[in-house]
Amino acid sequence: MSANRLSLNTATTKYWTLAEAVAGAKAAGLEAVGLWRDRVAEVGLEEAARIVSEAGLRVSSLCRGGFLSAADEAGIAAALEDNRAAIREANALGTRELVMVVGGLPAASEPSGPAIPDGDKDIVAARQRVHDRIAELVPYAREHDVRLVLEPLHPIFAGDRAVLSTLEQCLDMAAEFDARDVGVVVDTYHVWWDPKLREMIARAGAEGRIASYQICDWILPLAPDALLSRGHVGDGYIDFPTITAWVAETGYDGDIEVEIFNADIWGTPGEQTVETMKERYASLVEPYL
Amino acid sequence: MSANRLSLNTATTKYWTLAEAVAGAKAAGLEAVGLWRDRVAEVGLEEAARIVSEAGLRVSSLCRGGFLSAADEAGIAAALEDNRAAIREANALGTRELVMVVGGLPAASEPSGPAIPDGDKDIVAARQRVHDRIAELVPYAREHDVRLVLEPLHPIFAGDRAVLSTLEQCLDMAAEFDARDVGVVVDTYHVWWDPKLREMIARAGAEGRIASYQICDWILPLAPDALLSRGHVGDGYIDFPTITAWVAETGYDGDIEVEIFNADIWGTPGEQTVETMKERYASLVEPYL
Repeated sequence: MSANRLSLNTATTKYWTLAEAVAGAKAAGLEAVGLWRDRVAEVGLEEAARIVSEAGLRVSSLCRGGFLSAADEAGIAAALEDNRAAIREANALGTRELVMVVGGLPAASEPSGPAIPDGDKDIVAARQRVHDRIAELVPYAREHDVRLVLEPLHPIFAGDRAVLSTLEQCLDMAAEFDARDVGVVVDTYHVWWDPKLREMIARAGAEGRIASYQICDWILPLAPDALLSRGHVGDGYIDFPTITAWVAETGYDGDIEVEIFNADIWGTPGEQTVETMKERYASLVEPYL
Repeated sequence: MSANRLSLNTATTKYWTLAEAVAGAKAAGLEAVGLWRDRVAEVGLEEAARIVSEAGLRVSSLCRGGFLSAADEAGIAAALEDNRAAIREANALGTRELVMVVGGLPAASEPSGPAIPDGDKDIVAARQRVHDRIAELVPYAREHDVRLVLEPLHPIFAGDRAVLSTLEQCLDMAAEFDARDVGVVVDTYHVWWDPKLREMIARAGAEGRIASYQICDWILPLAPDALLSRGHVGDGYIDFPTITAWVAETGYDGDIEVEIFNADIWGTPGEQTVETMKERYASLVEPYL
C-alpha cells in the first residue's frame, strides 16, 4: 500500500468542483479522493475519470448507491436502474468500492423527510427488501468488477436514510455473498457508539469485507439539520486512536477517507479544510495504524 | 394484572405538579403513574408517597438513578450517594423499578454538554465503570427491595447521557446479577431501530428482566434540543403493533408507561395530553397485547 492513505471525500469540501477537489488533494500531497456522484455528474463521467486519472490519484470509493427500500414496483425499478448506473460509474472511475446508503422507511427515504403517521413502518420488511435488491444487483456489480459496500448508518438515520444501523447487521446481510461482491464501510461517525464495535471490526476484517475506513467526529449539540453534525477528527466524542487500532489489527491497508458534512467547515476555504484534515490524521489516526 | 396497564410518566405532563399528575391520571381512569424524582422532591418524599397511595395508584417506576460513569473519586462517591437516595425513594414510593440512565462520557454527562475535544473518550472504560458501580449498588438495592433497571438509550445519546445503547448490551451487563436485582427497560424510542430487537426482547423476557415497557414515537425532524424530539405514539416512525406483540409474546404483564419529552406537548393542557395517550394506546398498543 502507498505511503499516504489519507483520502479527501468530495463531500468534505462541498463547494469545490471535482477538478478543484482533485487539484486541492494533489497539492496537499494526498494520493486519493472519494467521489460523490453529484460532483461526477457535473462534469460528466468521462471527464471526471480523465481529471482523476491525469492527476494520478486513486479513487478510494464512489458515494453512493442505495436507497433500495421502496416497496412499490416503480420505486424498485427506479432504484435498480439508478444503482446499475452507479455501478458503471464506479467502474469507469477506477474504483471497486461503491458505498451503499440503503434507504430508510419507504415513505421517508428523502433527507429530512416528514414524519409518516400513516406510512409503512415495517422496518423488518424494509430490511428484507434491501437484501433482495442487493441480491439482484450483485451479478451486475461483479460483471463490472465493483463491490457493493453496505454502510451502517447511525441509528439517528434509521427512519429516513438507512435501515442498516450496525456493522453486525451489515455483515449478517453480506454473509451469503462473496467478500469480493459485498463489503462494509467502517465510518467512525456511524459506529463509534456500538458496544460490539471491536468484535465486528475484527469480523469484517477476517471476512475480507472492510472496503473503506471513513473518519469524522461526533459533535454536540447536533446541528439543526442532523445530517450536518459531523466534525473534524478530534473535535468531538470519538476515540480515534482506539478505533483506528482495531481497524489496523485486521490488516486493513486501504485508504482512509475524511467525509464531513458541516456547514461551518463547508464555509471554510478548501485548502484550510484539507490542512486541518491532514493535521488531525497525523496526530490521532496515522500513529495508530 | 389489572385491566388498565397504561401509566402516565410525569415527564409527559411536565407542568403538572405531582398532585396534579396523580389526580389527572386517576380522573382519566388510569391506575398507574411513573414518577420522576424532581416531581417527588418538590413535595417531599413522604407527601409524594401519601398522594399516590391515597389515590390508590400504582407507581410503575421511578426515574431515575444512574449517571455512574464518573472516573474521579469525588464523582464516584457522589454518584453512589445519589443512587442510594434514589433506591430509598423508590422503596418509599412503593415501586421496585428504579430506572437507570447510566451516564455518558465523563466530561459530558450533563444534558447538552459541550464537545470534549480534550476529554476522556474511552467509552469502553466508561462502560466498565458503570458496571462496577452497578455491582456496588446491587446489595443496597436488594436490601430495599428495589431493582436497578438498565435503560439502553438511543445511540444519539451515547456521548452525553448513556454509554449503554442496546438491549443486548444491557442484558450482557445484567447477566451476572439476579433478575430480581438488575432488569432492563424496553423504551420504544430508544430501541425501535435495533436489528436485534425481537431477539433481545425475547431474551429479556425469558430472563425475567423486563421491568418496564415505555412507549413514545420517533419523530423527524429532530427538535433543536434532541432530547425533546419525542412524539405521541403514532405520530412518527415506530411500528408499535409489532414491537408491542414482541413484548407481549414474552408474557410481560406489567405497566406500560408513556414518557414523552416534547415542548409542544408540554404546552398542551395535561388533560388533553392524557386523552391523546389513551386514544393512541387503545388503537396502536392495547390490541396487540
